[in-house]
Amino acid sequence: MALIVQKYGGTSVGDVERIQNVARKVAKFRDQGHDVVVVVSAMSGETNRLIGLAKDIDEKAAGREFDVLVSTGEQVTIALLSMALNKMGYPARSYTGAQVHILTDDAYNKARIREIDDVRIRGDLNEGRIVVVAGFQGVDEGGNITTLGRGGSDTTAVALAAALKADECQIYTDVDGVYTTDPRVVPEARKLDRITFEEMLEMASLGSKVLQIRSVEFAGKYNVPLRVLSSFEEGGEGTLITVEDEQMEQAMISGIAFSRDEAQLTITGVPDKPGVAYSILGPVSNANIEVDMIVQNVGADETTDFTFTVHRNEYEKALEIMQATAERLGAREVSGNNKIAKVSLVGVGMRSHAGIASKMFEALAKEGINILMISTSEIKVSVVVDEKYLELGVRALHDVFELDQEPEGNSED
Amino acid sequence: MALIVQKYGGTSVGDVERIQNVARKVAKFRDQGHDVVVVVSAMSGETNRLIGLAKDIDEKAAGREFDVLVSTGEQVTIALLSMALNKMGYPARSYTGAQVHILTDDAYNKARIREIDDVRIRGDLNEGRIVVVAGFQGVDEGGNITTLGRGGSDTTAVALAAALKADECQIYTDVDGVYTTDPRVVPEARKLDRITFEEMLEMASLGSKVLQIRSVEFAGKYNVPLRVLSSFEEGGEGTLITVEDEQMEQAMISGIAFSRDEAQLTITGVPDKPGVAYSILGPVSNANIEVDMIVQNVGADETTDFTFTVHRNEYEKALEIMQATAERLGAREVSGNNKIAKVSLVGVGMRSHAGIASKMFEALAKEGINILMISTSEIKVSVVVDEKYLELGVRALHDVFELDQEPEGNSED
Repeated sequence: MALIVQKYGGTSVGDVERIQNVARKVAKFRDQGHDVVVVVSAMSGETNRLIGLAKDIDEKAAGREFDVLVSTGEQVTIALLSMALNKMGYPARSYTGAQVHILTDDAYNKARIREIDDVRIRGDLNEGRIVVVAGFQGVDEGGNITTLGRGGSDTTAVALAAALKADECQIYTDVDGVYTTDPRVVPEARKLDRITFEEMLEMASLGSKVLQIRSVEFAGKYNVPLRVLSSFEEGGEGTLITVEDEQMEQAMISGIAFSRDEAQLTITGVPDKPGVAYSILGPVSNANIEVDMIVQNVGADETTDFTFTVHRNEYEKALEIMQATAERLGAREVSGNNKIAKVSLVGVGMRSHAGIASKMFEALAKEGINILMISTSEIKVSVVVDEKYLELGVRALHDVFELDQEPEGNSED
Repeated sequence: MALIVQKYGGTSVGDVERIQNVARKVAKFRDQGHDVVVVVSAMSGETNRLIGLAKDIDEKAAGREFDVLVSTGEQVTIALLSMALNKMGYPARSYTGAQVHILTDDAYNKARIREIDDVRIRGDLNEGRIVVVAGFQGVDEGGNITTLGRGGSDTTAVALAAALKADECQIYTDVDGVYTTDPRVVPEARKLDRITFEEMLEMASLGSKVLQIRSVEFAGKYNVPLRVLSSFEEGGEGTLITVEDEQMEQAMISGIAFSRDEAQLTITGVPDKPGVAYSILGPVSNANIEVDMIVQNVGADETTDFTFTVHRNEYEKALEIMQATAERLGAREVSGNNKIAKVSLVGVGMRSHAGIASKMFEALAKEGINILMISTSEIKVSVVVDEKYLELGVRALHDVFELDQEPEGNSED
């Protein structure tokens, strides 16, 4: 008898048959005596249909009304799933974000959860009901509908699991777990049985699209065991994301994350003065452009060279800002490249193993891949390379670090 | 400077272009200095799409989850219309039924409005905003979403107009007003400039589909002037539904309503005892079947004959119940006919004019139309005839009562 929060994404509830399939999955857990709270996304395609309607009216549609609109997607799914469960003889009740009072701030389109009132859900569970909650949405203090931004349903599930002190939060998706890297790039990629929150966070933020990054942060913060499973395959154990434990000690590298959506900007010959980094990055950040990697080098004649990366969509905007900045600071030149990719090795084992970075650089060099930028943290090493080398680089690293093999001494079942 | 509540139905907001068209209409009233509250239905087809999804899961889908599902239809429209208004530079804010606290009872799928909290709406109006409210939906005391049943958006509009003490409630629809009868049956049918609440109630309840009957009741009860207008034609005055006044005195008959969805059941040779009507109609009403006309005749040998009409959809069910009843009461026979139609003359002027009924029967007799049942009230005379005579009967009556002509002495503009 455990309390389980399950989340089913848009593909898993993509049509009526799939919703009925989810109902059967949920019922199976109920039959085992568990209390189940289910969080669902909009049926796949539905959110895009709604956004399409909004864009027909206002190309820049956003703000309060946008959330009123798109939140209907999940509301449709909770009703249909509850009907399917009721029809099968499993009492179920649906709730919108507002109804279970998923209180958020008032940042429309990307709100953050502040608090969840668990009274109503606990009442239903105590009466033997399955509770079905709309993901991705909440309500602000003024009673206005908010949404958490795309992928926010994962965050809803984790936040509910934390509020209810659930035994496990299961994220059902179209993959059967977290892999050492994308199997579409490396067919030998291996499914991980376990991974730490920290590693998953690096994997997610670096472009692995299995889980929404905020949901992993949330799960780590409240120590909610998180499991990624396939909603289509039966019986799989998926990947458990949890705190570091002894079983994982031997794994030096857990996986390779990569991202194609990168662009690089370089400003050279900037007169070097205290505060120069801020003069360069301030205007970029004021324009709401997120900066990822940053590298500063000493240049010639008391000048400095400065390189950073941004999301590829922001490239043009960032370039424009940098040209103005260069003029203002009297810099020599601004250059950029939006055909780059980032490849990262991730693993908590790195902390206690030296030489990971050099082994990585050696492997890339052997393939003739030039490294454009390097950035490291305690549990990852990231390199920026020319986009055309992305797959080659990922495959070479997967091979060199033997990620297709179970780590030695790993006693997992 | 008036406060106007406007309601736009599903056809009027059927696609993005039409929603933009509604926004322009609303803006025009705003430009005239009026405060405007807009109530909208789901985009046409949307409610049926949602019901289709529900029926794919449960053929008998109803109850709480059904309302959670279908209420999303209006929520989409309020968001899109508010976006369109905002885009045009007219500050607007949307509200679901729950958000403006349209408190209803908890009769899912056919809830009744109890109370509306006008604080939030007044606040927005005072700040110069247009308020857009989802029709057809509310919330019960437990915070559960309810719907008012089909056509309930009209009722929402009238209830809001009553709560806000609005100067006028305008119902925009795909016809340009209330006609003396359906112009598809009688091409000479004339648009009425004014009609009383009572007459409209009879017209609506007798099958004229312009307005939902509960909205007319509501408007009459709270004396909210109600105007039916076309949302597609510009500049029309529509039909004003209001209290009786001198201008209307001369009109004997306002219109002819008719309904095809009728079925008749007769039970003959029922031993006549006190309480026999209840023994017959009790089981029918317990099965939630609404009975319309009722006629009881004295039969032979201390028995009685009993005839009543129900909606055609309920015919089979009612017949089954009547057969059981006949057996229980020792009646002679049960017969029925589901190929009947009802035709009614409606007019407040009837009160002061004798001979309307006989003139009606004469006109029908001239066309060789046999009358199966008759029922009268202060402002209407209804007859049941064989379905195949419906159009012929309506045309004959429209002609005999000269409904294509403006009533004599009518000083309306």
